[in-house]
Amino acid sequence: MAAKSPDFAPTNRKQALRGRIVVLHAFQMLCPGCVSQGIPQASRIQAVFAERELVVIGLHTVFEHHAVMNADALQAFVQEYGLSFPIGIDQPSTQGNVPLTMQAYGLRGTPSLVMLDREGRIRLNHFGPIDDLPLGALLGQLVAEAPAHADEEGIPDPRPPGHGDGQANAGCDSGICARALQLDS
Amino acid sequence: MAAKSPDFAPTNRKQALRGRIVVLHAFQMLCPGCVSQGIPQASRIQAVFAERELVVIGLHTVFEHHAVMNADALQAFVQEYGLSFPIGIDQPSTQGNVPLTMQAYGLRGTPSLVMLDREGRIRLNHFGPIDDLPLGALLGQLVAEAPAHADEEGIPDPRPPGHGDGQANAGCDSGICARALQLDS
Amino acid sequence: MAAKSPDFAPTNRKQALRGRIVVLHAFQMLCPGCVSQGIPQASRIQAVFAERELVVIGLHTVFEHHAVMNADALQAFVQEYGLSFPIGIDQPSTQGNVPLTMQAYGLRGTPSLVMLDREGRIRLNHFGPIDDLPLGALLGQLVAEAPAHADEEGIPDPRPPGHGDGQANAGCDSGICARALQLDS
Amino acid sequence: MAAKSPDFAPTNRKQALRGRIVVLHAFQMLCPGCVSQGIPQASRIQAVFAERELVVIGLHTVFEHHAVMNADALQAFVQEYGLSFPIGIDQPSTQGNVPLTMQAYGLRGTPSLVMLDREGRIRLNHFGPIDDLPLGALLGQLVAEAPAHADEEGIPDPRPPGHGDGQANAGCDSGICARALQLDS
Repeated sequence: MAAKSPDFAPTNRKQALRGRIVVLHAFQMLCPGCVSQGIPQASRIQAVFAERELVVIGLHTVFEHHAVMNADALQAFVQEYGLSFPIGIDQPSTQGNVPLTMQAYGLRGTPSLVMLDREGRIRLNHFGPIDDLPLGALLGQLVAEAPAHADEEGIPDPRPPGHGDGQANAGCDSGICARALQLDS
Repeated sequence: MAAKSPDFAPTNRKQALRGRIVVLHAFQMLCPGCVSQGIPQASRIQAVFAERELVVIGLHTVFEHHAVMNADALQAFVQEYGLSFPIGIDQPSTQGNVPLTMQAYGLRGTPSLVMLDREGRIRLNHFGPIDDLPLGALLGQLVAEAPAHADEEGIPDPRPPGHGDGQANAGCDSGICARALQLDS
Repeated sequence: MAAKSPDFAPTNRKQALRGRIVVLHAFQMLCPGCVSQGIPQASRIQAVFAERELVVIGLHTVFEHHAVMNADALQAFVQEYGLSFPIGIDQPSTQGNVPLTMQAYGLRGTPSLVMLDREGRIRLNHFGPIDDLPLGALLGQLVAEAPAHADEEGIPDPRPPGHGDGQANAGCDSGICARALQLDS
Repeated sequence: MAAKSPDFAPTNRKQALRGRIVVLHAFQMLCPGCVSQGIPQASRIQAVFAERELVVIGLHTVFEHHAVMNADALQAFVQEYGLSFPIGIDQPSTQGNVPLTMQAYGLRGTPSLVMLDREGRIRLNHFGPIDDLPLGALLGQLVAEAPAHADEEGIPDPRPPGHGDGQANAGCDSGICARALQLDS
């Protein structure tokens, strides 16, 4: 991942996620739909599932207002909202507004939810709100899957899919922020 | 089941539920917590899961105000609230207020949620509200389970467990209606 | 009023309402929008305003399912939902489904809210949901009005307006129950 | 006011507010209770009341995380949340964290709501959440009041009251941010 994660040192990150389901919550701190829905839902996921089964990781995928959604602002945000899951900062691109992990996963905007199973395979890549009941059902199915090669070395890096289909319009209609696709390099 | 179900004729009921997960939602039409939470949640379950995987069945377990929560009143209620899952009426007891299926399952009050897996085994017997996320996770796990004997004859009748632990106080605090346990025979 | 009110004896009803704002909440116990929105709002009004200023009165205006929304059923409903404002039962018509007070006020369905000022004049006759903020603003304006003839005998009976404009379709779309207008005599 | 308001030029500000009710909503852009409750409520007030009667003014009273809740960050926030009421930035103190208008009004934290009547007198100074119904009732009463000296010159500057009673603990429990009182000079 291109993200800088303050909670998982590079040397043991794969170790920490070995055999666990990973829920990646991509957000921006000034995205209304992230604040009202996505982030509280990520916290609920963290509360409902056992840590040994599933880990929630936030990813601050800033693709607009870069100057004011910096690391210091994020730290204040995390403190005020009392978030306790680890949050990585997506690495800015040198060639456009869309940060590198956001590009790699083909995320269409924020909030987005990416689910990786115990094998590190992407099982969901969803942009926009999703209800708790179908979300819980998906996660319950992943939990029920036995790890295929539990004794193998490490977890394969998730291979990001091709870029998104790009139907979303840029901007923050209804509190959901879609990125401007021409910025996608 | 002691319930009279208008939607599943006795002769083909087992057939209809063969190999499917069954979510039994026990309610009373004048129970506030059922109307505000339990019944809408049962409808959401019905909407999220495929019919060939999971069936939602309502069970009208009247244990108070029997005279006014009769079959005609229930029919008007179902029409006004636009419910589309099948609803059975729990058979009244000749010896007390608690109807027979409610006794057999040891239900402590309404709303209660009972989940049966594909094999007909009880996997949840829950009294009171439950959030969509953990509920979805449980259902997702049941969906992920392959039927053990898919080719066998019918589905075994669920064997009701022993009676509940009975800590609930009688009455409708917070909209949740607990039955008076002395009525439990 | 054609309503039978258990809380205000006929001989002192006018006395009890003298100089006070009256909020009349017309509902049916099996109307979804009444149960989820109208009735809780009526209870909030009762809680926010001083009794000497404003009185909330429920009016059970049954215009469908008459057999099952009877006085006994209403009593069980009121008990289960813990309602503490007085509730009158609108007097059935001998010529149609719409009860007499509902006809007299030209109410279009349930929930409906009728507000009478200190002089007994109708200041609002509203069908369907209404947000708390504009509702509170209207009530605050009525509270701010000094009684014009505070020393006069009694409060004039509110003269019901002409019948409603009748655009509502019969049925319970979106939980709001509109009466069938052909029943209006 | 010590606030810098981008929407009311100093020379005509009194003119613009002449004879109107003023609702001052004090907030911080990273205060959870402001984002989830206070700011949406301020927008509802703006939508319900006529502009010639009542004006809503936001006041960004930053008393923590000053570096990241700066004017540029506020501008991005206002854009993303689609706020259309004018917002002033409270002037920082040279002697502590609490900005000058916040001190002058004795505000205890964010969100706070200050209501001024047509005469410019403070009629409410409230810290924390407040329900729409009592809030609407208060505003309705203010709207019902005729201006006492409608033909006089301008509106008197609201004289801030003595400092608050100071019982609030510093921090953001339950999403409501109270200022540390020792910073109050």
